[in-house]
Amino acid sequence: MQHFNFSAGPAMLPADVMQQAQAEFLNWQNLGSSVMEISHRSKPFIEVAAQAEQDLRDLLAIPDNYKVLFLQGGGRGQFASVPLNIAQPTDLSLHLQSGSWSKGAVEEAAKYTRTHVVTQDAVNAAGQRYVPDQTQWTLTDEQRQQAAYLHYCPNETVDGIAIFEPPKCDKIPVVADMSSTILSGPLNVSDYGVIYASAQKNIGPSGLAVVIVRDDLLNQAQSITPSFLNYTLAANNDSMYNTPPTYSWYLSGLVFKWLKAQGGLSAISQRNEAKAALLYQTVDNNDFYHNNVALAHRSIMNVPFTLADPALDKEFLMLAEANGLAALKGHRSVGGMRASIYNAMPIEGVQALTEFMQEFARTKG
Amino acid sequence: MQHFNFSAGPAMLPADVMQQAQAEFLNWQNLGSSVMEISHRSKPFIEVAAQAEQDLRDLLAIPDNYKVLFLQGGGRGQFASVPLNIAQPTDLSLHLQSGSWSKGAVEEAAKYTRTHVVTQDAVNAAGQRYVPDQTQWTLTDEQRQQAAYLHYCPNETVDGIAIFEPPKCDKIPVVADMSSTILSGPLNVSDYGVIYASAQKNIGPSGLAVVIVRDDLLNQAQSITPSFLNYTLAANNDSMYNTPPTYSWYLSGLVFKWLKAQGGLSAISQRNEAKAALLYQTVDNNDFYHNNVALAHRSIMNVPFTLADPALDKEFLMLAEANGLAALKGHRSVGGMRASIYNAMPIEGVQALTEFMQEFARTKG
Repeated sequence: MQHFNFSAGPAMLPADVMQQAQAEFLNWQNLGSSVMEISHRSKPFIEVAAQAEQDLRDLLAIPDNYKVLFLQGGGRGQFASVPLNIAQPTDLSLHLQSGSWSKGAVEEAAKYTRTHVVTQDAVNAAGQRYVPDQTQWTLTDEQRQQAAYLHYCPNETVDGIAIFEPPKCDKIPVVADMSSTILSGPLNVSDYGVIYASAQKNIGPSGLAVVIVRDDLLNQAQSITPSFLNYTLAANNDSMYNTPPTYSWYLSGLVFKWLKAQGGLSAISQRNEAKAALLYQTVDNNDFYHNNVALAHRSIMNVPFTLADPALDKEFLMLAEANGLAALKGHRSVGGMRASIYNAMPIEGVQALTEFMQEFARTKG
Repeated sequence: MQHFNFSAGPAMLPADVMQQAQAEFLNWQNLGSSVMEISHRSKPFIEVAAQAEQDLRDLLAIPDNYKVLFLQGGGRGQFASVPLNIAQPTDLSLHLQSGSWSKGAVEEAAKYTRTHVVTQDAVNAAGQRYVPDQTQWTLTDEQRQQAAYLHYCPNETVDGIAIFEPPKCDKIPVVADMSSTILSGPLNVSDYGVIYASAQKNIGPSGLAVVIVRDDLLNQAQSITPSFLNYTLAANNDSMYNTPPTYSWYLSGLVFKWLKAQGGLSAISQRNEAKAALLYQTVDNNDFYHNNVALAHRSIMNVPFTLADPALDKEFLMLAEANGLAALKGHRSVGGMRASIYNAMPIEGVQALTEFMQEFARTKG
């Protein structure tokens, strides 16, 4: 029986990557040590670190005026780091609130700058969750002038709500929490001032955050910024102002190489679309399952769904597990099910899941 | 030829631990996934996390009124986190400055609280570095009253300077940066208010900091403390307020189990003392080598030494490497050599190093 892991994060990594990592676990590059046992300032590690950055730059076509940082603290670390690095206490940060993570980002930003929520996720006439479009934002000219940046989360991992077009707001830098969507398809980095992502969904193991920051936003960190969170210090020290999480960085590099071998982000995007389409089709074509996100905002990465009878949730999860389909439980804050189908999930996993779902609905529904 | 890795950090991990980690890398606990691919909120991971904490508590005999936290950001993260969590801006933090790391801690603390250096490392009449004892501190009664804590670093990784007795200062909590000395021998946790350590020397891979904090020091974080650095939030959420670095936590747990299997901290301390004694003996008995730290302050973990002729440094390092003795280059700020001989380094490694040193001095000296 094949095993498929639908964890939202830490999530499965590509099988090829894991096999390579295991093979060279004890003796990396014939050094007699694991890559995790050598200095971050040693030549072999610096090469691996630089190569990982280059591969990420290649994949996302990151322009030269953006710095790429490999930091600690994950997404929540960036909730604090973004305002600390690119806003002053008297500035305003604008927030597009579309689910639980973007809400968390507002709350943390409020410690370091003034905040204003331009819109919140809502429920449409059909009872589906959606995000009001830009014409419905509440945003005065004065707020626009005071804004240091606009923050949004293009993919809400918990809620399965996506925003596919980056907001446009004149010269206000757009900051995107791409933790659960980065590298799932091509994007235009120039649309953003800062892109950040915790690693544990589409990049690597937990304990790493990747930050892509436009260089004109550097050199303005608040004086209270902890040095190890300071973008400028990190940029000036190739993310080695302090000891970076070297093993996570190395594994991320393997993932970037794997993505290139898959044909890059256009190719992976097609596969991701196909996986999501199959899963949503199964949900939509069967009255036993339900997804309550409006079509235009359905996540390609995280597909939450509920059973017609929540009393069957436990049995669903138990049987799924017995069929090699792991970690389908929805986030504790929303319940139900959630299938996270990041880059590393093969189409076979989604096929196995949809077959199981149909069989479960047929026999238990 | 055997390979021995003297890296100061990220440093070698016990061979047994690495072999176990490799064996279960792809399929941990028969789950069909790596431990790094499962949710930090899953039962199997929570068990591993709790067991690691318990094993650490057992090893250090940590009293019940101390919380153990597994956080991101390493030692430099704690340079900011300590003042943010246990001092107010108007408080005073006292600092015993004995080398480059404790100096870094003062500089970072100065962002969040007032600071006062009670003493600095100095050079004695014999030209050796040492740390003046408590009778020589500059500390007024007023400063004593305003002090929220006293910070020191019992083992300076770069300088090879150790302080073996914790300072006593009435009721002022003592904060110790034990990054390069934790678990190298028994200690009395009750002597401290906060003990912290980056993992990448004696605990596990980089990207993790372990914090042991007395519970009466919680609940007073400054409002500007980034949530993911807040001790109280971490304590109330079993270090899972945000996604922890799960793989590093797991590996640390394996190291703690390994330490128990070695006989605990008294046993490992004896081995560490023997390794250090052999290395210092070799340095002291040969005019070609020199260590400039006073006897009472010589580190058991990091042994810096210089060659009589610095022009031979490069050849020493090259030949050492060729003999399987890796990463002996001293820190870029001080030059010379440094052998880091943490818990995981077997006595055979130090024997091989001292034999090489003798041979090198004989033929090149």
